[in-house]
Amino acid sequence: MRREPYRMEGLPERVTVYEVGPRDGLQNESAVIPVEVKAKFVARLAAAGHRVIEATSFVHPKWVPQLADAAELLTSMERVPGVRYPVLVPNERGLDRALEHGVTEIVIFGSATETFAAKNLNRTLDSQFEMFAPVVARALEHGLRVRAYVSMCFGDPWEGPTPIAQVVEVGRRLLDLGCYELSLGDTVGVGTPGHVSALIEAFGGPDRLAVHFHDTYGQALANTLAALRAGVTVVDASTGGIGGCPYAESATGNLATEDLVWMLHGLGVETGLNLDALVETSTWLAARLGRPSPSRVVQALSRSSKP
Amino acid sequence: MRREPYRMEGLPERVTVYEVGPRDGLQNESAVIPVEVKAKFVARLAAAGHRVIEATSFVHPKWVPQLADAAELLTSMERVPGVRYPVLVPNERGLDRALEHGVTEIVIFGSATETFAAKNLNRTLDSQFEMFAPVVARALEHGLRVRAYVSMCFGDPWEGPTPIAQVVEVGRRLLDLGCYELSLGDTVGVGTPGHVSALIEAFGGPDRLAVHFHDTYGQALANTLAALRAGVTVVDASTGGIGGCPYAESATGNLATEDLVWMLHGLGVETGLNLDALVETSTWLAARLGRPSPSRVVQALSRSSKP
Repeated sequence: MRREPYRMEGLPERVTVYEVGPRDGLQNESAVIPVEVKAKFVARLAAAGHRVIEATSFVHPKWVPQLADAAELLTSMERVPGVRYPVLVPNERGLDRALEHGVTEIVIFGSATETFAAKNLNRTLDSQFEMFAPVVARALEHGLRVRAYVSMCFGDPWEGPTPIAQVVEVGRRLLDLGCYELSLGDTVGVGTPGHVSALIEAFGGPDRLAVHFHDTYGQALANTLAALRAGVTVVDASTGGIGGCPYAESATGNLATEDLVWMLHGLGVETGLNLDALVETSTWLAARLGRPSPSRVVQALSRSSKP
Repeated sequence: MRREPYRMEGLPERVTVYEVGPRDGLQNESAVIPVEVKAKFVARLAAAGHRVIEATSFVHPKWVPQLADAAELLTSMERVPGVRYPVLVPNERGLDRALEHGVTEIVIFGSATETFAAKNLNRTLDSQFEMFAPVVARALEHGLRVRAYVSMCFGDPWEGPTPIAQVVEVGRRLLDLGCYELSLGDTVGVGTPGHVSALIEAFGGPDRLAVHFHDTYGQALANTLAALRAGVTVVDASTGGIGGCPYAESATGNLATEDLVWMLHGLGVETGLNLDALVETSTWLAARLGRPSPSRVVQALSRSSKP
């Protein structure tokens, strides 16, 4: 159905969808996905119009076995001119491997809460920066761009809601290391739109901020709308909505790129993305993962395309 | 997790959640649900704080076999003082039955598009009002309140997007008959937030308007946020998110009351509803329907309550 857009006051003209499917989406899949499928997934995402695709991670295979093929993927996958393929790098060893494989943009993964810093990074909230500092410094020396995730910005399962001032301090310290952008993550999906607005305001505005919402409580798209109204123009999403909750079938992890694009195009916000191509990609990938995409748009459009 | 609210400028202090689960939610269930279960469902909704619960419909059982027990339900169910139990009435025969059973508030179901008027009402867009006029007039004579749904306000599967002027004309004619409130329905879930704002503005503001979103394309909560910003204070929702898409397991129909309430309470908007009691009710109902609730919040909170 061709729909004319209805614009809303105060929204950006254009949004960059930062695609996290190949890394954040696939990392929790238990069945090993062949590297050829991953390369094809990345290629299809680029063909659908994505200009930034987080391809994989150099985290130790012991922690994320699914991405143990990072080097192989980077060697074999097609790179489309004009498309950025950032790679998650947890530490200096990961950076070494990224540099060996011609990566030009890396991503680090910080924590906004003490407990998650301990569990995920084996660090304190404060000492995580000692770990990141040499990674970022060396990456910048090599001419790489560095993006930083701040995870658990709206709450974590152990400490409850995360104080906004704490998120801002963590974020500022990551920016001060030299990161070009912060991606504010609602890793457990508990945030609501007013919280989003308040956090962005506490940073002094949307400059250098991206948002990364999980749809665990169904809030991801409403939260995105709040972020757009606050001036944010970079939104993380995962094609097909894959990722996030490996323990429940078709459970809700990342905001689905298709659901986001339906809203953005409906609002007349340009993305450069071809929604039909994304839906076809998600349907193709779902067949390989052996279960349906949790994206509402993928479900609706694949139903309506049937006789 | 107890969370302090983060308010957003321009939102109402309080929202009435108009609960449609027992009627709109259950009507598409193919397996017959015992009337005792329905009565218990209605009672649990009232106990969770609902003050308006659309209980059933006097549509002909040939069209909606699931609600053939409307009279029996109304005779047997508990009525809590202060709670309204509107009933859908398609025509004068339905009104007669509603009056026989002590109903004090009815709902009529109009169409904003020509094709859906033909398919659902067997009327033209224009002649539907001849059918509704005597129903509303007689209901008002008997002291009943009358609410009107306007379905397909944002598009239908046959004609594409619905012209806003057409929705406004249909809505105005229903209000002119004497309805106290219009519920603007996105029956197929295709709308986006700017469309919502534009429609409400075209009505001259939120006076006497409620919204009724389906989550088929994942837009229901973002659209609700737009409606709240436009001043709407009555939002239809279905506890557990039941209803709407009988042909897909746990498919997305009505906006889930729980997902709505998570957002509203997060925004500091009062509802009078007890979220935990709603989630328990949805979990209880899901066991009786034999499949999980499609509500993200129900899924998240029932997972987190497990060891």
